[in-house]
Amino acid sequence: MKIEIITIGDELLIGQVIDTNSAWMGQELTREGFEIKAISSVGDKEDDIINALDIAFGRADVVLLTGGVGPTKDDITKNTLCRYFHTSLVFNDEVLANILQLFRQRDIQLNELTRNQAYVPEACKVIQNKAGTAPILWFQKDEQVLVSMPGVPFEMKTAMTNDILPRLRSLYQPIHYLRRSFTVSGITESKLAMLLNDFEETLPSGFSLAYLPSFGVIRLRLSAWGDRYASEMSLQAHKLEGLLGALLIGESEKALEGLLGEKLRQRHLSISTAESCTGGHIAHRITLIPGASEYYKGSIVSYSNAVKEDLLKVSPTLLQTQGAVSREVAEQMARNVADRLKTDCSIAVSGIAGPDGGSEEKPVGTVWVCTFYHGETEAQCYHLGGNREEIILRTTQVALMQMIRMIG
Amino acid sequence: MKIEIITIGDELLIGQVIDTNSAWMGQELTREGFEIKAISSVGDKEDDIINALDIAFGRADVVLLTGGVGPTKDDITKNTLCRYFHTSLVFNDEVLANILQLFRQRDIQLNELTRNQAYVPEACKVIQNKAGTAPILWFQKDEQVLVSMPGVPFEMKTAMTNDILPRLRSLYQPIHYLRRSFTVSGITESKLAMLLNDFEETLPSGFSLAYLPSFGVIRLRLSAWGDRYASEMSLQAHKLEGLLGALLIGESEKALEGLLGEKLRQRHLSISTAESCTGGHIAHRITLIPGASEYYKGSIVSYSNAVKEDLLKVSPTLLQTQGAVSREVAEQMARNVADRLKTDCSIAVSGIAGPDGGSEEKPVGTVWVCTFYHGETEAQCYHLGGNREEIILRTTQVALMQMIRMIG
Repeated sequence: MKIEIITIGDELLIGQVIDTNSAWMGQELTREGFEIKAISSVGDKEDDIINALDIAFGRADVVLLTGGVGPTKDDITKNTLCRYFHTSLVFNDEVLANILQLFRQRDIQLNELTRNQAYVPEACKVIQNKAGTAPILWFQKDEQVLVSMPGVPFEMKTAMTNDILPRLRSLYQPIHYLRRSFTVSGITESKLAMLLNDFEETLPSGFSLAYLPSFGVIRLRLSAWGDRYASEMSLQAHKLEGLLGALLIGESEKALEGLLGEKLRQRHLSISTAESCTGGHIAHRITLIPGASEYYKGSIVSYSNAVKEDLLKVSPTLLQTQGAVSREVAEQMARNVADRLKTDCSIAVSGIAGPDGGSEEKPVGTVWVCTFYHGETEAQCYHLGGNREEIILRTTQVALMQMIRMIG
Repeated sequence: MKIEIITIGDELLIGQVIDTNSAWMGQELTREGFEIKAISSVGDKEDDIINALDIAFGRADVVLLTGGVGPTKDDITKNTLCRYFHTSLVFNDEVLANILQLFRQRDIQLNELTRNQAYVPEACKVIQNKAGTAPILWFQKDEQVLVSMPGVPFEMKTAMTNDILPRLRSLYQPIHYLRRSFTVSGITESKLAMLLNDFEETLPSGFSLAYLPSFGVIRLRLSAWGDRYASEMSLQAHKLEGLLGALLIGESEKALEGLLGEKLRQRHLSISTAESCTGGHIAHRITLIPGASEYYKGSIVSYSNAVKEDLLKVSPTLLQTQGAVSREVAEQMARNVADRLKTDCSIAVSGIAGPDGGSEEKPVGTVWVCTFYHGETEAQCYHLGGNREEIILRTTQVALMQMIRMIG
């Protein structure tokens, strides 16, 4: 059984909104053992949606649709599905009851447009939306299924988790997708591929190895479909670990902040951060991890030099002679934040995210990262490319990596 | 002329990576006046890619491909394009020279796999990749164009900006896409739609109005294709502004941090933040805006109570009697961070992002936001849904909104 995800909305095509729904659905469906054949996005145009449905059913058995189900005129998915399935709208009292209950909780009055949400195509099974007003529509014809869900991520996720995934599980026999992930650092992608050449050549059939390079790290994914590969998977993963040796910095799908959290927790270490150019992004990444409060104490985001002096006790003379973006200032920031917040480790960064503020000597993208652990500091200067946002994200990557490596 | 974007990679289908390339390309292409017909993602399988190309050329004239062009075995786009265009690989000295130059800058040695990047399909025009090793391939047949680019965002963006967009501009006559955006708050989507019903009914043909609800705000997009609509657009936008009145909090595509920055700059105000549950995310959002250092001074991320006491001088008695998640603590955080960082305004938040830490009285999602301006504080309690990450993002939204409204 193969699945296609279709997301609907002009905002996706013009890039006003990034489609995060598909990746979430892809993750959940893959974990359950379903295979995604394709993901596509089309605009709020009837013919384009119909065409996308035809294409999807040409390569998949199940089509999961999100978007275009709001109460406003630009949302046309429901009527388009009526045309596609040769059916018409009927009023559904249960949907109305569901909306009324939701509105009582939120203290909102029903109006005509919201009431219209209770009109649903006759030829489908209606699933109540537990998190919003637009009902979920389940169309089934022989072995083919089409599900229409809201595009609002929280509503889609609630419906997927509570209703759609359980129904798909009971309808189809999912095949288990086995995978092992390895986060590697300190080598280029092509060198890594050469190192693993023999391993890849001798991989048993049914197995595949994928390379996912991202800034500063390469993630390897070893995968196979079906539980019968389970013991062979362990063998191959073990072999791969051996080949990677010290290049391997973590064996999970975890992001760097997850790997760092794991290490800190294992060793009962606490950490703080002092951020200038990243403006709180390192703190944000670290605190995305549930339970981060066990090891993370806080951050001083010293965006201005005054805050560097007042709160981080960076020497005004140093700021003047070396500049804020310097080894010496990063070192003082790292030592002093660990001291003030009483932590075992700390990360400090000071750099130029741009677009302004660069000079010939210190161009945009120049970043000093200093990590502190066990009374020692380690400072390194990076020259990062990209626009402002990319420099912030990349600085965060290299800083987390430097801390992981320093703890060892 | 219509465009389809295809992104290639198993990692997209299994949700290991969120496709941000398409949104960026959609934005740039739309701004230039090109229309995106569809976006699709398929895995690293030859037949699936070929099928996706056939589908794309059935609905678009130009197909922009990203991904699958690395030096490793799992990357098969180049060979697949050879099959699709009935051509074969030839060695290209200019590509090799480009790689060698890049490697000299980065102090990397050439190896066989990277050298193989210089093999390119004979039937295409090769465009040098200024940011990486995989060349950009431009296939053209009559009026149809296919461009293959790397999936690494920075490399794709460099190629698009320097080469692909200028070439598309000179080849086709783009039609200007006119749009005006309005950020609205304090009303439900359906109520807004009822308020705007007559406006929508009387919109001249060629115009469309789209609703993009996201947490706490609704963005309206009024659009039309073609410069001939320019003066009518001004009239309609003016009419819409009048109807929206006080509901309108900003008239741009800017995110809330951009709207806040605009207001702060106009009034010569400075701001600081004190964050607990958001862990630096508000600071991060504010500092995404270029030039934020003009008004943003810094943040104290007080993840632990000790930091709340030491750095933010929150009374230990209050923390004990009211708890960290309380009006009183949020108020002290807001006042004291503005005082310590010497700013005119401040935002403070304290809440429970979960999954742990909730209680019957204060369940996960309970968040106190206090904003400070002109010597006054305004504190509000929110009950937000979603998982940990969603609660962090939503808290950031409501906090930025509360500050924007308070400044007025």
